[in-house]
Amino acid sequence: MVGGGEGAFIGAVHRIAARLDDAFELVAGALSSDALRARSSAEALGLARSYDDWREMARVEGALEEGIDAVAIVTPNHLHASVAHAFMDAGIHIICDKPLAVSLAESEALARRARETQRVFALTHTYSGYPLVRHAREMVAAGEIGEVRVVQVEYAQDWLALPVEQDGANRQANWRTDPALAGPAGCLGDIGTHAYQLAAFVSGHVPQALAAEVHTFVPGRRVDDHVQAMLRYANGARGMLWASQVASGAENALRLRVYGTKASLAFDQEAPNELWFTPQGGEALRLTRARVNGAAARDATRVPAGHPEGYLEAFAQLYRDAAAQIRARDAGEPVPPESRLLTTVDDGVEGLRFIEAVLASSAANGAWREIGR
Amino acid sequence: MVGGGEGAFIGAVHRIAARLDDAFELVAGALSSDALRARSSAEALGLARSYDDWREMARVEGALEEGIDAVAIVTPNHLHASVAHAFMDAGIHIICDKPLAVSLAESEALARRARETQRVFALTHTYSGYPLVRHAREMVAAGEIGEVRVVQVEYAQDWLALPVEQDGANRQANWRTDPALAGPAGCLGDIGTHAYQLAAFVSGHVPQALAAEVHTFVPGRRVDDHVQAMLRYANGARGMLWASQVASGAENALRLRVYGTKASLAFDQEAPNELWFTPQGGEALRLTRARVNGAAARDATRVPAGHPEGYLEAFAQLYRDAAAQIRARDAGEPVPPESRLLTTVDDGVEGLRFIEAVLASSAANGAWREIGR
Amino acid sequence: MVGGGEGAFIGAVHRIAARLDDAFELVAGALSSDALRARSSAEALGLARSYDDWREMARVEGALEEGIDAVAIVTPNHLHASVAHAFMDAGIHIICDKPLAVSLAESEALARRARETQRVFALTHTYSGYPLVRHAREMVAAGEIGEVRVVQVEYAQDWLALPVEQDGANRQANWRTDPALAGPAGCLGDIGTHAYQLAAFVSGHVPQALAAEVHTFVPGRRVDDHVQAMLRYANGARGMLWASQVASGAENALRLRVYGTKASLAFDQEAPNELWFTPQGGEALRLTRARVNGAAARDATRVPAGHPEGYLEAFAQLYRDAAAQIRARDAGEPVPPESRLLTTVDDGVEGLRFIEAVLASSAANGAWREIGR
Amino acid sequence: MVGGGEGAFIGAVHRIAARLDDAFELVAGALSSDALRARSSAEALGLARSYDDWREMARVEGALEEGIDAVAIVTPNHLHASVAHAFMDAGIHIICDKPLAVSLAESEALARRARETQRVFALTHTYSGYPLVRHAREMVAAGEIGEVRVVQVEYAQDWLALPVEQDGANRQANWRTDPALAGPAGCLGDIGTHAYQLAAFVSGHVPQALAAEVHTFVPGRRVDDHVQAMLRYANGARGMLWASQVASGAENALRLRVYGTKASLAFDQEAPNELWFTPQGGEALRLTRARVNGAAARDATRVPAGHPEGYLEAFAQLYRDAAAQIRARDAGEPVPPESRLLTTVDDGVEGLRFIEAVLASSAANGAWREIGR
Repeated sequence: MVGGGEGAFIGAVHRIAARLDDAFELVAGALSSDALRARSSAEALGLARSYDDWREMARVEGALEEGIDAVAIVTPNHLHASVAHAFMDAGIHIICDKPLAVSLAESEALARRARETQRVFALTHTYSGYPLVRHAREMVAAGEIGEVRVVQVEYAQDWLALPVEQDGANRQANWRTDPALAGPAGCLGDIGTHAYQLAAFVSGHVPQALAAEVHTFVPGRRVDDHVQAMLRYANGARGMLWASQVASGAENALRLRVYGTKASLAFDQEAPNELWFTPQGGEALRLTRARVNGAAARDATRVPAGHPEGYLEAFAQLYRDAAAQIRARDAGEPVPPESRLLTTVDDGVEGLRFIEAVLASSAANGAWREIGR
Repeated sequence: MVGGGEGAFIGAVHRIAARLDDAFELVAGALSSDALRARSSAEALGLARSYDDWREMARVEGALEEGIDAVAIVTPNHLHASVAHAFMDAGIHIICDKPLAVSLAESEALARRARETQRVFALTHTYSGYPLVRHAREMVAAGEIGEVRVVQVEYAQDWLALPVEQDGANRQANWRTDPALAGPAGCLGDIGTHAYQLAAFVSGHVPQALAAEVHTFVPGRRVDDHVQAMLRYANGARGMLWASQVASGAENALRLRVYGTKASLAFDQEAPNELWFTPQGGEALRLTRARVNGAAARDATRVPAGHPEGYLEAFAQLYRDAAAQIRARDAGEPVPPESRLLTTVDDGVEGLRFIEAVLASSAANGAWREIGR
Repeated sequence: MVGGGEGAFIGAVHRIAARLDDAFELVAGALSSDALRARSSAEALGLARSYDDWREMARVEGALEEGIDAVAIVTPNHLHASVAHAFMDAGIHIICDKPLAVSLAESEALARRARETQRVFALTHTYSGYPLVRHAREMVAAGEIGEVRVVQVEYAQDWLALPVEQDGANRQANWRTDPALAGPAGCLGDIGTHAYQLAAFVSGHVPQALAAEVHTFVPGRRVDDHVQAMLRYANGARGMLWASQVASGAENALRLRVYGTKASLAFDQEAPNELWFTPQGGEALRLTRARVNGAAARDATRVPAGHPEGYLEAFAQLYRDAAAQIRARDAGEPVPPESRLLTTVDDGVEGLRFIEAVLASSAANGAWREIGR
Repeated sequence: MVGGGEGAFIGAVHRIAARLDDAFELVAGALSSDALRARSSAEALGLARSYDDWREMARVEGALEEGIDAVAIVTPNHLHASVAHAFMDAGIHIICDKPLAVSLAESEALARRARETQRVFALTHTYSGYPLVRHAREMVAAGEIGEVRVVQVEYAQDWLALPVEQDGANRQANWRTDPALAGPAGCLGDIGTHAYQLAAFVSGHVPQALAAEVHTFVPGRRVDDHVQAMLRYANGARGMLWASQVASGAENALRLRVYGTKASLAFDQEAPNELWFTPQGGEALRLTRARVNGAAARDATRVPAGHPEGYLEAFAQLYRDAAAQIRARDAGEPVPPESRLLTTVDDGVEGLRFIEAVLASSAANGAWREIGR
């Protein structure tokens, strides 16, 4: 991993994501451009090999017999291209956070180099990973909505509605509103590209032309915080894209609607467990991951029917609580307060009290029954 | 891990949950009562130590210097008690799937033994792990809804609406409707106890008495598939509990509402990213994990504001896809079809095309702009 | 109309309902047991004939050549039976608010008398009038959900969560919690009967037996404010009914779910424009009034596809505003403030400015266009 | 009324709306340009005075001592201006369906004439009549969302997704897609103007400039069926407007969101009983008509707390059913089938059976109780 040291946000998410499916093991990193922070971060994560500099990391890992297979690049945007080139040159596959780069030319060079080196170059447009987003794409491709006529996509947030970058305390805001680190596109690059990618991913079409306006609402901000665009597609379809980071009250409201000649689809990433399909003139059908019948959703499914995305985190929470208590117990320390909500054998006893009381009451034709304790 | 071999369901969920927070590493298991399946399952998971029998596992692991810290028990219900005793006796902490046991007496013995041996005994009532469930509990405890008056809890599923256990093909249905394996309580033990525990966890009250009826709708079924109960609490509160596995159309509809003298709370585990708080005579407030201000929700949070539970799975999906492609590329094999939706450097180029077209159009006062390719 | 004088609530609703379809004209009334209020109320409504006493009204109207066809009884519950008998005896049809009477014996006498006199005796269980409630009933009757297995009905309000009747100011609360006026059933009679009727209306089944508890939460209250009951049906179905007027945060939450062997239906009267149908193992379908294909919904429909219930009130609001302005204009008075939101010709000009600007911009390939004013 | 004869749609809605609040009585009309249909329509409605021609109607009614106060104009768009001029010239107030006219010049002339003649000129932008729309406007005006930054409004329908006007059977489609009758703006004039007006009504701002595109998706259609526009406001705000009549699956999806510096508001006319208010960085509050505290919502309210818009229609349905049965009974005819769902005295008896069974069961500590019949 390059980037993702202490205080960073997306790096931790990448690490969990890599671990969730046991697909990767994190063994090496250049976690910060600050050498001290790079080392302390690596130590905190128990990394086998820590580097002060990503150039060195690319060189050394590329030469090692048992070097890394892939690198996750989670730096600010302006470094993506240089880092990716270094690792591709060293024969290492790339998993890169978005946006890919800060200019079209830079990005095209990366694509060219990926082809030349035959390296896998994954770009983490996360929203493409939702089972129902993949299912939506599959439905459109299968012609279930007919020919695409209208694409409406939007991505609204409110965390930049105030000049939060101007007091220096919010590290995320700092670099994301600094053109030197984030590139010339602010909201446009940060979330506009997500909206654009999601629309293309599901609809199967990229626009042919657009008419757009970027705007900066917050005085003193150096990048845009608002984008609006109209879209034209080669097949005659029309569309609109809106992205804003000053939309008061919006958390992470990425929403897509695709209207075809026969039906429409709607997805809201804040409610990723449902996908709405409505035929022309018909009734809305609420599709859920577990009940749709498609290859893409099935491949992206980890939990059984009737358990929402997020169930795994809830489950993991109990494991985390248990681990904390076990560690404390074994060390002879008090139960860590943040683990105190772990359900235990006592909850189990309570459950059996309930079961036996129910069975007894039911057997007595529903007579009220004390639950002894 | 005991249980959780090939074909089992909850074992895989336990394994992911354990890994998600890097809290545990799975090193040993007696994954099936069938020795052959135990071995092949262990091999598939790359376990360091596989046992044909859980008794042996408890004995050996307890004696090892570097034996397991904790065991996850994911067998059918009737084995929970025996397995847990064996491992507690061997000095090993317990993480046990629910329900704890098949009788109250059995469960009380387990609780006693856990106290005697000072072992952590986690019972995985998963729904207690949701950030907003924990926050709800915290709000009730802080008096935000006043004194509790009414508790309405329900858990509806439809997967047993038909006699699916009667053709033998559905392994889940088979053991869950067999009193010898699941205990005398069917729906009551399987999901009724979840509803009961969730209500107690959030409301902070366990009922004092109940009047109940268990019922079996599907002819030939040997355990109940429907439970209804009325509840009375020591403080005068009243409540109702409904659990059904024949509720046509219901996926996993666990819902809790707690009404106090000042306000009410409502939670639906199928939409775990929101919690509804409504004051007496007032307007409903939709609380989200990222915006509530409480210790419990914060401790149970892994992703930043505005990203729903489930975001991690979406992210992990891309890592899984990338791993599959990297493995294939390194082996000189074609791209695995199920990984084909990975977003790559080409999506990145498309994103930069978009960014540059938007900036150009906006600079030209919104004139339409071709997106060259 | 008997009852419904100034300060009453349901009387005004009855009057609007009678007028909406031009089905009745209000010509006579005994609007209050207080003679002065009866007269002033009648005058305010422009009634042709006002009576100080409902007995006299029944006698006189029954004898008139052009007397009333039907009487609307909107008094407190304890008078329903006497009033209805008097008018049936006078040969007049009855439209009576619910609950029908304050005892079973009283109600059976009314039913008997209605048969003997061959009078239409409408009881206004309003919720039966929603198009989608009628459609739900039709679907169940047509076998679309299979055989009914489970009925879950609830009706929650919060307006009696505090002892509002104890300061005398809330007239609704006063009589509805006074056993002498409302009968021995409080919440049970007021809203429990609505829940019970709705469940029977849609499911086509009335329970055979029940186990129940009424409860009074608010100290000093003389009738129940909370009811919980378990239900058994002749066909083996089970059910639960909950009604509460102390459910903090609930406005008028009447909700019904009926689960059959093949599918389920769910209706929430606070969102009366949708009905949810979910097949066993399938996806939820959101039915809307305008798109379902059934006789009952069609007969109960007044507005075209895509316009929700409530659209008529919005429309009527503009007519009310216009009437107020016309009246003022003709009288040479200033515009009444409450009518100030009427949309007028100036809004129309604004609309045409918009249309022409859009057409001009579009004709200029989307160039920005000033909207002149 | 001018227009609104048999087969027309909006005329009937106008008539109900006029009657709902007892604000107007319909006494005269020129209901169709076809003299025969004008007469038969007038007869069906029981009009006192029917005219074959609206010019004659304006002349005669204007001269009558007891002539009409106001005229409702519900003709196709191209006639609005001529009819309105004739009636204003005759001293009669105007209630006109939207859009006001087919050109900006025509509309400005109407506005001028309304001022000169001092006639009230109501334009029925219905959606302005919803209590919560008026409340939203009030909130914005009171500064509750801060300064307006972003306006997103859309109006999607699907009833013109197919070339329904091309077989001649759909009268609505015929005239609304005929430029000679509807004017040069199709979807733009029909629903785009509603979206535009709603945005202005609530936000308190009209745009200063726009960049737009109208589009026609259905081959052979003579007017636009799709509009997209970007908006700029004088205060620096930005916005987008989308209107489409080919949005497969959309019924009447008029939705508005207004984002200010402090909070945002969202309204969906398909769910007119709720308004969403979300502060910057805060939680969404679901406002309902009965619980907001504002003059505009209160003035537009007809039903008490907890009863949704649409409740009146449900209530009216029972009155309609009762009227049908009374008419039949008095005429010695069988019960009309469409009135068969009327709730009657028998439902009342059933309700009392329920009440008495509940009270008896509760008195017996919840013992199951048969419900005798």
